[in-house]
Amino acid sequence: MIKNVWKLPLRISNSTKNNGFPVTKYWIHSQPNFTKNNFNIKRGNFSHVEEEHLYFFRKLLGESRIITDLSDLEKYNVDWNKHLRGASTIVLKPKTTEEVSKILSYCNNNRLAVCPQGGNTGVVGGATPVFDEIIVSTELMNKVINLDEKSGVLTCEAGCILQNMDEFLQQKNLIFPLDLGAKGSCHIGGNVSTNAGGLRLLKYGNLHGNVLGLEVVQANGTVLDLLSTLKKDNTGYHLKHLFIGSEGTLGLVTKVAIQCRLRPKSTHVAFLGLQNFNQVLKTFYKAKQDMDEILTAFEVIDTPSMELANEKLGLGSPIGDYPFYVLIETTGSNEKHDEEKLDGFLQTCLNKNFILNGTVTGEVSKYKAIWEVREKLPQGYIKDGFVFMYDMSFPLENYYKLVEDLREHMGSLSHRVFGFGHLGDGNIHIQISVKEFNQDVANHIEPYIFELTKKYNGSISAEHGMGFLKAKYLNLMKSQESINLMKNIKQMLDPNGILNPYKVLF
Amino acid sequence: MIKNVWKLPLRISNSTKNNGFPVTKYWIHSQPNFTKNNFNIKRGNFSHVEEEHLYFFRKLLGESRIITDLSDLEKYNVDWNKHLRGASTIVLKPKTTEEVSKILSYCNNNRLAVCPQGGNTGVVGGATPVFDEIIVSTELMNKVINLDEKSGVLTCEAGCILQNMDEFLQQKNLIFPLDLGAKGSCHIGGNVSTNAGGLRLLKYGNLHGNVLGLEVVQANGTVLDLLSTLKKDNTGYHLKHLFIGSEGTLGLVTKVAIQCRLRPKSTHVAFLGLQNFNQVLKTFYKAKQDMDEILTAFEVIDTPSMELANEKLGLGSPIGDYPFYVLIETTGSNEKHDEEKLDGFLQTCLNKNFILNGTVTGEVSKYKAIWEVREKLPQGYIKDGFVFMYDMSFPLENYYKLVEDLREHMGSLSHRVFGFGHLGDGNIHIQISVKEFNQDVANHIEPYIFELTKKYNGSISAEHGMGFLKAKYLNLMKSQESINLMKNIKQMLDPNGILNPYKVLF
Repeated sequence: MIKNVWKLPLRISNSTKNNGFPVTKYWIHSQPNFTKNNFNIKRGNFSHVEEEHLYFFRKLLGESRIITDLSDLEKYNVDWNKHLRGASTIVLKPKTTEEVSKILSYCNNNRLAVCPQGGNTGVVGGATPVFDEIIVSTELMNKVINLDEKSGVLTCEAGCILQNMDEFLQQKNLIFPLDLGAKGSCHIGGNVSTNAGGLRLLKYGNLHGNVLGLEVVQANGTVLDLLSTLKKDNTGYHLKHLFIGSEGTLGLVTKVAIQCRLRPKSTHVAFLGLQNFNQVLKTFYKAKQDMDEILTAFEVIDTPSMELANEKLGLGSPIGDYPFYVLIETTGSNEKHDEEKLDGFLQTCLNKNFILNGTVTGEVSKYKAIWEVREKLPQGYIKDGFVFMYDMSFPLENYYKLVEDLREHMGSLSHRVFGFGHLGDGNIHIQISVKEFNQDVANHIEPYIFELTKKYNGSISAEHGMGFLKAKYLNLMKSQESINLMKNIKQMLDPNGILNPYKVLF
Repeated sequence: MIKNVWKLPLRISNSTKNNGFPVTKYWIHSQPNFTKNNFNIKRGNFSHVEEEHLYFFRKLLGESRIITDLSDLEKYNVDWNKHLRGASTIVLKPKTTEEVSKILSYCNNNRLAVCPQGGNTGVVGGATPVFDEIIVSTELMNKVINLDEKSGVLTCEAGCILQNMDEFLQQKNLIFPLDLGAKGSCHIGGNVSTNAGGLRLLKYGNLHGNVLGLEVVQANGTVLDLLSTLKKDNTGYHLKHLFIGSEGTLGLVTKVAIQCRLRPKSTHVAFLGLQNFNQVLKTFYKAKQDMDEILTAFEVIDTPSMELANEKLGLGSPIGDYPFYVLIETTGSNEKHDEEKLDGFLQTCLNKNFILNGTVTGEVSKYKAIWEVREKLPQGYIKDGFVFMYDMSFPLENYYKLVEDLREHMGSLSHRVFGFGHLGDGNIHIQISVKEFNQDVANHIEPYIFELTKKYNGSISAEHGMGFLKAKYLNLMKSQESINLMKNIKQMLDPNGILNPYKVLF
């Protein structure tokens, strides 16, 4: 048993060993096919953008806030994973709620379909057009409206970038209750619209709990002022929740009020090596028992995920190779207490053989280096050939079962089947990498993977939403009565169906 | 400066001094008038319960689960405050979701109005009939369906009593994320339907964040299975939130899945005396800074509230008389750490003259005795003549302003104007006691109090809901666009308006 590794300097590996898998750029990465051609899907009965529409938009926004140049449109038409490619011919960049209202009202009256877009960082195609929807980008709606430093309530426009907000809050000794890998480009409005989960949910809870208020523009241009900044407000139906997680299909979020928190005074990160998944679970339960109130993140990474970080990113385990890795972050108000709790917990885990090895640090540069391994995994796997990506959640006892089943199911059809994620929230990101996209392989994976998820009482989308790619599987997860109600709500709020068509309910 | 009071034995006062205010039983307490006669309100166009309906219900439930005896109906017809009195002639007690479904379907087809009722502990008349609505009580739907001890997810029927659930969870080392004064009789389904806030919200967040899933019966009898038990599930619209806080007007909650937490190993309660409200705020901000992660409750009590506890309940301040009192609860995983944090915080507050005196305890019997003073206040004030009660929330800097304004505004018209509540959540309960109900006094209070609440950027219902009593003021708080959407939702889910009429949107 190795007891003395704690507080050792980190050994971040720079090894870039290649296991023979060719590092090639596939078409899918540089120039995905048009989604409308790749998928068997019919364009809705919407108008096409014509000169008269352009005239209206130019008059409203001016030439500088409209994009029609094909190459400039590229980054708005292609999704982050480069799996999907819309055929939109126009991006609109409103600066105000009033402009958004006028755009939607006009589009509604003229039966023009709209794709609301934030940072376009989604991985299920929720923010990328499918046909020629008009892209309404929130990127110029990026102002902080108010920060109440005492209460921690931030009110900002929907296009504010998550990382910018967190840096702004840092100056005021506050922290955003949400953090995720795409923070450098994702928009708050997009986070809200997808009910993003991320890395801090274990401590701070979800957006339904943290969002205090919203301003939303309905499909017909009506502005809904739901922008309460109070922690408790039980006056009438709690309408804001309709727009949290409905992926821009019910309204376009223009402003957000959110409960931020005091920035913790102390942060520690431990990186642990474990023998098997059963020990991962034991370690998690022990962490909850010993330090529940300071436990901010409990992330798990499996061996093939780490191999991928090594091969594609030059990142690696700082403690050598183990079957499973766990990253634990604690944050609190007292450095000494947090250290004592964490050290006591780790010592117990070593003594009980829950963990085999580990390193722990309270130094910013070091814990950021450890986090980098976990956070950059998505950047690594898009280099791993073509990757089928899934975002599942399960009861903890079933958390890793699907990965194991999939490995057996795929056999030699796949290059790598790997899983990592927010174990503390039951959320695992499962990837299957293959040399290049192949429909037969796709058919071998789906719907098998979704049916198994259901069998294990899981969700086929924990935090990414249904978007375009998962929409067709909604009926696997939800009862017909629920789907009927969803459709009625959609019909009520967007009778012409102009808002983000082909998504969620399609 | 008194530094040595910490850890002194509690001195719970038993003084019952009377300041001359007559302790009389008013009509309002024993036998409130019928609401339909007291308020200018017209019965909806619903059928009256007739023999053929009774025949159906008897056949469905049997004689033993139907109440039609007038004296037995009393406790279902009269609200907890004894301000309201419905004229229902029948209570139905289904045991299963299927029975609820059959009841609602039948009522919907026969245009019979329904008042869903849990523990009937609400204070705005949300759970009490107004005319002759059929009361559908959840009191026999009181089974635990499942507890996942590892994840802390409890699934139970709507009629489970909060305190029973918390005691059940205690045996499993878990804690319910909600606590409130009425816990001995309120139902989980009612808590969810009113989005109850309570005493632990500061630490565990609100029900929108903690409820994982619901089963709901719609007005037409359709059963909606939204009973997810996963922490993260972004598959389709997040429908459950429609039913959290809509006070039984959109559907009847039959089952609840909720994220419970590990029971803390250590609990401490401090009771402090302070000079003025400004010091209360300083103490709160300091508590957040020094012990954010273990701060479970920060309650404030003003002098007249404490006088009332003294006069009507024989309870009092354990530390002598001060202009303001603060009750702080901390809970955590490490007794020693929590004690150190709390002692350090208290010492700083004394040194900075934020607080004048205080006592602190980690002993169960003692901290329960301190909590009793705060928790029993509502039982005290219903003995204080007729009491106008308000449940407001404000930005913290405005938290106590309305109480001061009201004292001046009321002058000699009122006996006592007092405020106490969950300062940590911006939530204050404001009461105005008078000798007996008087419409002129009522008109002097309302709408003045609501207009001032709006001026101070507050909410006229923080955690109690709109129910019957506040419904008419909804337009003070919400925009016409929001109210229109609420009405559309109501129309969609309950086109005949049978579910809890005269409430929320009336």
